Amino acid sequence: MSENRLIQGFSKLTSNEKRGLAARLTKDPQASLRIMASFFHPEQEVHKVLSSFSENTLTNYPLPYSVAPNFLINGRLYMVPMVIEESSVVAAASAAARFWASRGGFRARVNGTEKTGQLHFRFTGDAGWLENQMPRLDKELRQRTVEMSANMVKRGGGITSLQLRPLPEAGADCYQLLVGFETADAMGANFINSVLEEFAAGMRDFFDAHADESGGAYETLMAILSNYTPGCTVSVEVSCPLEQLGVTGGLEAPEFARRFERAVRIATEDPYRATTHNKGIMNGVDAVVLATGNDFRAVEAAAHAHACRSGQYRSLSRASVEAGRFSFSLEMPLALGTLGGLTRLHPLADLSLEILGRPGARDLMMIAGAAGLANNFAAVRSLVTTGIQAGHMRMHLPNILLQLGATPGEQEAALGWFRDKKTSHQAVSDYLKTLRNKT
Amino acid sequence: MSENRLIQGFSKLTSNEKRGLAARLTKDPQASLRIMASFFHPEQEVHKVLSSFSENTLTNYPLPYSVAPNFLINGRLYMVPMVIEESSVVAAASAAARFWASRGGFRARVNGTEKTGQLHFRFTGDAGWLENQMPRLDKELRQRTVEMSANMVKRGGGITSLQLRPLPEAGADCYQLLVGFETADAMGANFINSVLEEFAAGMRDFFDAHADESGGAYETLMAILSNYTPGCTVSVEVSCPLEQLGVTGGLEAPEFARRFERAVRIATEDPYRATTHNKGIMNGVDAVVLATGNDFRAVEAAAHAHACRSGQYRSLSRASVEAGRFSFSLEMPLALGTLGGLTRLHPLADLSLEILGRPGARDLMMIAGAAGLANNFAAVRSLVTTGIQAGHMRMHLPNILLQLGATPGEQEAALGWFRDKKTSHQAVSDYLKTLRNKT
Repeated sequence: MSENRLIQGFSKLTSNEKRGLAARLTKDPQASLRIMASFFHPEQEVHKVLSSFSENTLTNYPLPYSVAPNFLINGRLYMVPMVIEESSVVAAASAAARFWASRGGFRARVNGTEKTGQLHFRFTGDAGWLENQMPRLDKELRQRTVEMSANMVKRGGGITSLQLRPLPEAGADCYQLLVGFETADAMGANFINSVLEEFAAGMRDFFDAHADESGGAYETLMAILSNYTPGCTVSVEVSCPLEQLGVTGGLEAPEFARRFERAVRIATEDPYRATTHNKGIMNGVDAVVLATGNDFRAVEAAAHAHACRSGQYRSLSRASVEAGRFSFSLEMPLALGTLGGLTRLHPLADLSLEILGRPGARDLMMIAGAAGLANNFAAVRSLVTTGIQAGHMRMHLPNILLQLGATPGEQEAALGWFRDKKTSHQAVSDYLKTLRNKT
Repeated sequence: MSENRLIQGFSKLTSNEKRGLAARLTKDPQASLRIMASFFHPEQEVHKVLSSFSENTLTNYPLPYSVAPNFLINGRLYMVPMVIEESSVVAAASAAARFWASRGGFRARVNGTEKTGQLHFRFTGDAGWLENQMPRLDKELRQRTVEMSANMVKRGGGITSLQLRPLPEAGADCYQLLVGFETADAMGANFINSVLEEFAAGMRDFFDAHADESGGAYETLMAILSNYTPGCTVSVEVSCPLEQLGVTGGLEAPEFARRFERAVRIATEDPYRATTHNKGIMNGVDAVVLATGNDFRAVEAAAHAHACRSGQYRSLSRASVEAGRFSFSLEMPLALGTLGGLTRLHPLADLSLEILGRPGARDLMMIAGAAGLANNFAAVRSLVTTGIQAGHMRMHLPNILLQLGATPGEQEAALGWFRDKKTSHQAVSDYLKTLRNKT
């Protein structure tokens, strides 16, 4: 099979055949197959479950599964599972958690857990007539989904609100039903989408039944949940009297606090800086999201859309120094689940929830938010004191040594040599050259 | 050890001791340890490399490693590795790639690969004097980093621009050096940060040397790369004459195109919809980013910050139907590397690059962008035709069956039963109950 011909019916092939076709694109197909096989889970049942999460699965892609201990959140200590491929994120989270654990810890609060869904449609008739039908429509649509919602209502969830919004910029005949949902401890994506599609059927029936009075044509455009959840947010804060900050990276508390506050203010004003500042928050949030089998694209999209709600992209966190008190806080949308999806099916997502003491969705929101604030604190603290590279490059040194093919002996020597020196790819390469010339 | 006491020196413990402490938080510590051990890589050397990517690593967290074949990009066929835990993303990408491969494929273009870095500082002296010093500062700062940049310059990269920007809203004495970088096929984070920190030292020296004429105090606030890269973007487009669209999900081409275009227009106007629309793009992009060892938080932050550059959060993609031609395109910032970081160290990231034919950073930007557009096309196509749940729930059915503890026999029966029926958690649960009552 040539690389330049379309492959027909790929999805119907066996996993072995798929792996074979992928391997044939590589220089050494046998070696590639061996690499893929080396990542299979040894228990066939587990391997099958993992493979079933996606399609055309060839093998398992490992990311480091870590923990950050000493997260004191609302008076309770957590060891937080984190899955992230970037060096120094877990170390930074752990250091920040430890720092704040002896200063009162994280105070976290869930401001709401309402999810949103949207049904978009066209209606060419009179907008006033449509507006007037809303009470009746509201009742009919809810009625249609009683059975479908039964399970969710039992767990304290269900449909919370239903609102008609015209979308004049997308078209004079363009409307949206914005629907609010409570989904208890589930993320609820499938529930929301199923309800919305039933709503679509209900709208169709309603407009068919009222064709003579509506004075216009109806057409459903699409029905799907929204990942933007301004009604499902978490707030996390750390604070302490200035003097409790102690000496940080060589800086006395007042100077440290002043520089920290200024750095966060810059991230509030400058979108270039805000992007990276918020990225640092998401390092911690996403690591928890991944470790618990949640969907990080959904969380990312909501967080960043929220960051620009003022009309400019800004920092999600704020710092202040007032009346002798330093405080640092984060507010962000965060729709997570501890039921459904992969949360129980993935053996390590399940283990994460177990390590966290089987949190509900609200607890998990607070834990992930705390991880985000911890990573943000650690990053800004590095930036305004020793600089980000000092810590990061030291963490990254083992990777550089591996890249440069350093022997165990060379690795040990380099780790000693660079303990108190500036680390860069070039410097490590030069050092290894010197070392090799000596011997 | 009680769960309520801080753990001292956790980072210094052995991996075994760390796993032990984590396992003690679970109901069955022995079982938890067995689960963690079951995810170790069988080759100790590989396991060590994977563990070294992060800190406090307990084991490896597997995500499905998949491929989407038939991606025709600028006339070349790719099989695209994707790592994603969400069901139906890979199937959707594959279906969209197959659809467009026979309609000319994806036309992709890299608009630039400039990265950005920022040095923030305070200067209490005259702004005019500072402005006048820029040519001299520019020269001195570049001079200081010649050696540090040597490796990057050799590969065609280096410092491209240096610009002074006041930040009056963050403080009257607050400034930024916005620095442009070319980083060849590397993401270049460490290079950029090292250069910026050398710049910081250079600024310190410069202001010390000119203390008597500057008329003010200087203070470096922070130096770090920016993840917002409006100078490093990719454009991807698919298009074809309307009649070539054929019948899609039961819709004739003109109606399909009209509904599709309207759906994208709604995502341009409504932030709730835009968030989910862009999330669908990122499903594809991130899956390639993960599979190639790149940093998805950086890519996410840049993409979403870009989505709100107009002052409102909007769709990253656009659709049009003009002169009998349907076209659908995406433009987004995308800073990726095929050198450095984990790209070579992670055996499967390395395999991904091998399967892709060892792309450079620019090629990889186009591939990831195409995956994003493919997933966006598939999602909007589902939405405006059969609805998202039909396909997604069918894909998700095996997961639901596993959750409900269905036996292999029950799974087979359910897959057959739901082939032409509406799938929901409730419906599957009811079906299994009926099935079990029968036998």
